[in-house]
Amino acid sequence: MHMDPEIVSKNIEAFIRQMVDEYRRDGVILGMSGGVDSSLVASLLVRALGPDKVHTLLLPERDSSPDSKTDAMVEIERLGVGYQEIDLTPILSAIGIYKQLPLQYLGARRIKETVVRQQHQQQIEKLGEMPFLAGLLGTRDIEKGQRIIDAGNAYARVKHRMRMVVLYYYAELENLLVIGTTNKSEAMTGFVVKWGDNVADIEPILPLYKTQVFQLATFLGVSQEIIDKAPSPDLMPGIVDELALGIDYATLDKILWGINQGWIDSRIIEAYNVDIPQVEHVRELVARSEHTRIMPPYPEITLSN
Amino acid sequence: MHMDPEIVSKNIEAFIRQMVDEYRRDGVILGMSGGVDSSLVASLLVRALGPDKVHTLLLPERDSSPDSKTDAMVEIERLGVGYQEIDLTPILSAIGIYKQLPLQYLGARRIKETVVRQQHQQQIEKLGEMPFLAGLLGTRDIEKGQRIIDAGNAYARVKHRMRMVVLYYYAELENLLVIGTTNKSEAMTGFVVKWGDNVADIEPILPLYKTQVFQLATFLGVSQEIIDKAPSPDLMPGIVDELALGIDYATLDKILWGINQGWIDSRIIEAYNVDIPQVEHVRELVARSEHTRIMPPYPEITLSN
Repeated sequence: MHMDPEIVSKNIEAFIRQMVDEYRRDGVILGMSGGVDSSLVASLLVRALGPDKVHTLLLPERDSSPDSKTDAMVEIERLGVGYQEIDLTPILSAIGIYKQLPLQYLGARRIKETVVRQQHQQQIEKLGEMPFLAGLLGTRDIEKGQRIIDAGNAYARVKHRMRMVVLYYYAELENLLVIGTTNKSEAMTGFVVKWGDNVADIEPILPLYKTQVFQLATFLGVSQEIIDKAPSPDLMPGIVDELALGIDYATLDKILWGINQGWIDSRIIEAYNVDIPQVEHVRELVARSEHTRIMPPYPEITLSN
Repeated sequence: MHMDPEIVSKNIEAFIRQMVDEYRRDGVILGMSGGVDSSLVASLLVRALGPDKVHTLLLPERDSSPDSKTDAMVEIERLGVGYQEIDLTPILSAIGIYKQLPLQYLGARRIKETVVRQQHQQQIEKLGEMPFLAGLLGTRDIEKGQRIIDAGNAYARVKHRMRMVVLYYYAELENLLVIGTTNKSEAMTGFVVKWGDNVADIEPILPLYKTQVFQLATFLGVSQEIIDKAPSPDLMPGIVDELALGIDYATLDKILWGINQGWIDSRIIEAYNVDIPQVEHVRELVARSEHTRIMPPYPEITLSN
């Protein structure tokens, strides 16, 4: 997975400029989460278009980590881009999501990290697999605790979908292109929210594995604090990417690379010193998440003139 | 465009059953708008799965026509399916959309139909093309009145996106498959809201032109009142489909059929007795709406091992 960061960033910047023209927009907008993906994308956008054409939104809600805003602000200031903060809590409250969770989750303000982690561990034991994997398709075959997994999925996923809706609302008011921040490791494992963060007008870093996102972010001067912290969807306190995925990114990316080369399991295992259950887990993630990478399926119907 | 309604509905029903199984869901959910598309899809779902597995939501907001609910309820009762009504007004208010429109739009409660139609006519004259067509890509090249078109798009589109978010929220709570109601005439002309009503878990009537939707709906016993009323997105009072599209469905579908057969303009014109500007208008709709039919584009990047 060698990449020349200078060439790759130039490619992406040219793509961004071309898309802004084709879509006839006056600029771009993206949500800043304080994570490495949105920080990298913001850096590429500023290199491609200059800071004046790059608009950013901070989209926190009740459960968001306060660090997310702090980290996002470091990048917003470094890049000199405009920003607006829209608190999603009242919008999500109007849907009724915060009344949904069982009482034991409720802390003083945010749901409690310790309770979330405990529940996550209990679910792994009950299901015999990672809850994230179990929830990728439906939960019909889960006999025990189906309702808790369903409620957790509904509670978490509505947040990313609402971010998409609010990004498009502000984009359309100012004729801006909505920029996605999904990378290849997320896309291939379905570690996205369907019609939430897996959609946008364009996806500039979709060809990059997460380990390459870190490489390019370092090259472009994204702050060390953001590069050093554990990647997290920031949807439920305590649930970071590698915990939910059930594998670390370094190992995941090697296996994904092997899968993309069309290698059989034994070749991947030999080349990267990974073990059979890891490869099987990743193949299962890829298979069950196919529906998050395609437009909705429809029936085959033949019509005649 | 001949179709045998019995064979086509059997095909679609088999597809629905197969998808509910593959996605491991306990049932399905869809939004009922009181229009012919959702009424047809609900009928197909009930035939495929029985009424107990079909959940419906009514999703009105401040500007929705009161007739929409009346008509949706006729179908809900005819089919014997469960329903829940979720008023989107407080959720959309929390985003601030109702404060957005210029003052002259505001009626006692809903925005005024006469003002919307007047504005629409003025925009056609200013733009030299249909505002819907002008808004399919961005509005950068529009010199006069760009902000009004942008505000109108933002105001209208957020509603369909919010419907999608609420449908998924209720779907995930009960492990249901989200069913779309987009037809082929809408999909090909981009007469959808991107990441709003153009996405769902499956799209059972996507292969059917609008004229076939009417045919199949009649065959399956959808109420005459729904079949007889003018199709409308019900986003802004006064804006019905054929007004926004700038062409009637009977003509549109013939031209789309010709385009799908790969015919050149002169053949379409000859075969269907349509005129050149109509064919050019439809080709323009198809071309500018491509981005509503695909997953977000990304740059080409070649990585080596």
